Amino acid sequence: MSLNEAAQKPHDRLAAALAEDMDAVNQMIRARMASEHAPRIPQVTAHLIEAGGKRLRPMLTLAAARLCGYGGPYHVHLAATVEFIHTATLLHDDVVDESERRRGRPTANLLWDNKSSVLVGDYLFARAFQLMVEPGNLRVLDILANASATIAEGEVLQLTAAQDLATTEEIYLKVVRGKTAALFSAATESGAEIAGASKDAVQALFTYGDALGIAFQIVDDLLDYGGSAAAIGKNTGDDFRERKLTLPVIKAVAKADAEERAFWVRVIEKGQQGDGDLDHAMALMGKHGAMESARAEALAWAAKAQAALTVLPDHPLRGMLSDLAAYVVARIN
Amino acid sequence: MSLNEAAQKPHDRLAAALAEDMDAVNQMIRARMASEHAPRIPQVTAHLIEAGGKRLRPMLTLAAARLCGYGGPYHVHLAATVEFIHTATLLHDDVVDESERRRGRPTANLLWDNKSSVLVGDYLFARAFQLMVEPGNLRVLDILANASATIAEGEVLQLTAAQDLATTEEIYLKVVRGKTAALFSAATESGAEIAGASKDAVQALFTYGDALGIAFQIVDDLLDYGGSAAAIGKNTGDDFRERKLTLPVIKAVAKADAEERAFWVRVIEKGQQGDGDLDHAMALMGKHGAMESARAEALAWAAKAQAALTVLPDHPLRGMLSDLAAYVVARIN
Repeated sequence: MSLNEAAQKPHDRLAAALAEDMDAVNQMIRARMASEHAPRIPQVTAHLIEAGGKRLRPMLTLAAARLCGYGGPYHVHLAATVEFIHTATLLHDDVVDESERRRGRPTANLLWDNKSSVLVGDYLFARAFQLMVEPGNLRVLDILANASATIAEGEVLQLTAAQDLATTEEIYLKVVRGKTAALFSAATESGAEIAGASKDAVQALFTYGDALGIAFQIVDDLLDYGGSAAAIGKNTGDDFRERKLTLPVIKAVAKADAEERAFWVRVIEKGQQGDGDLDHAMALMGKHGAMESARAEALAWAAKAQAALTVLPDHPLRGMLSDLAAYVVARIN
Repeated sequence: MSLNEAAQKPHDRLAAALAEDMDAVNQMIRARMASEHAPRIPQVTAHLIEAGGKRLRPMLTLAAARLCGYGGPYHVHLAATVEFIHTATLLHDDVVDESERRRGRPTANLLWDNKSSVLVGDYLFARAFQLMVEPGNLRVLDILANASATIAEGEVLQLTAAQDLATTEEIYLKVVRGKTAALFSAATESGAEIAGASKDAVQALFTYGDALGIAFQIVDDLLDYGGSAAAIGKNTGDDFRERKLTLPVIKAVAKADAEERAFWVRVIEKGQQGDGDLDHAMALMGKHGAMESARAEALAWAAKAQAALTVLPDHPLRGMLSDLAAYVVARIN
């Protein structure tokens, strides 16, 4: 590795190594999101898909397939599938959260309406299923269908767990698997599976994606209580204002005395928030070591992701995936 | 056939002939809509699935499979798949249409919220895909994935075509295929396919489901301008008030003179409706023979459905499917 390569972010090195494959994925995404009869569809999807997402999930599929020696054409279909599922869930999430901005731009539900976001999301799900059927691999279909169910169940669970102080770390983990890790692990596992990799290699890439996704989400939740808007694409305290039970809050609530508990009931369960409440919440998280503890968990998941890779063949992509796991948690160091 | 049997509705005769299979479908639906961690899911789905829908679509799958001599277990999975897709689209439709009642009961979006309807709909889609993967039949997956895309595209097309007087009969047919016929034809075609039926038989059952679905929807649209609330589960003129471009309106608009066109622009495009406008619209449809012409098309589609069945083996279920097509259009005689 040259000094120049070492200085690049792992994500950019992956993008460079997989540039040809990613071009094919981008072409397929554009071709498959078209609709001859309903021009609203490409309008809405182009708005979101061209909005400069990092294409992290499709890249994981491509990397897993290539790392396992795949030479066929179908990793491109699966990578496009994964991006379509991701985009569909973003469209529906923005309706559910009544969001107005995503990736620094107005959301589709704001530019058009909730109806378009719901129906175009459904269209992308359907297109994703068409794409995933094409390789004719039943094992891959199983992986992606199961991931879809985990994602949807996690979303509903998040809805019902929201603002509920009884939410445990176990429930949090299920929500995180649903909202983030299930698609990461399906991306890497399906890439390995389409390559016909060994059972051990498929399992290793599942574990890598799962642990990477969990680390990624814990970091995201931590940054919400300490990052800058530029670093995280949203404002500090958004989760607090939306009364979300994320890991640092769950940990602080678990250690709360009676007075602190009354505070959490007021700001999270009752949603009565005023000036200084965010600062007080952060002080309580600091007092109980909640941020530190959540940070240690993120680091442990990243280490688990890296450890899983060791059974895979020596390959430049393996090093990049390992560096990616380290990079994801480096944001909180 | 006894006199008693002849007096029964074709739908009830199908239900009796397929009673054991339908029990298995209902069991599978209950088992698969459960969610250990998100109790909101079975609440919402039970509300809708137990609300006394006629289970017409799963019955079509079972009938097609049995008619083609199927003896395996997987027609049950496919029938449950079809009902899940149907239920998911109802949940999302009610959000998009902002409906408050469905099958005489409050809608899920009214009882819970739009968020639950969107996310539980997604969950049912994902469960449907899990179910359809289980038989391990790639041809069936192709049919159902393509139907899902047609449904979603039709829904978006309906959204953008709504209130647009430029909507043609061609566009109307695409919308109808999306909202109704695509799932009918996927139900019958996938039943034939899982039975390993000949190409001709599969094609015949596709054509039957497609034509039956189109006839069904045209009749529904006609009844909206002439049926009673009891017969159609909604009030006369609902489509008019929602400014929908259904077949009788499209036909009347096509023959409108300048004054009539100004009327349609006002009530449909601008949505400025007052007392007497519904009556005037119906008078215009009568004057131009729009109702009669739409009725003739419904009858022709039903006849096409019946004709398609003739290549299939002689079987009591074949007669019931034929009678069902006649019954669907008998509502407008």
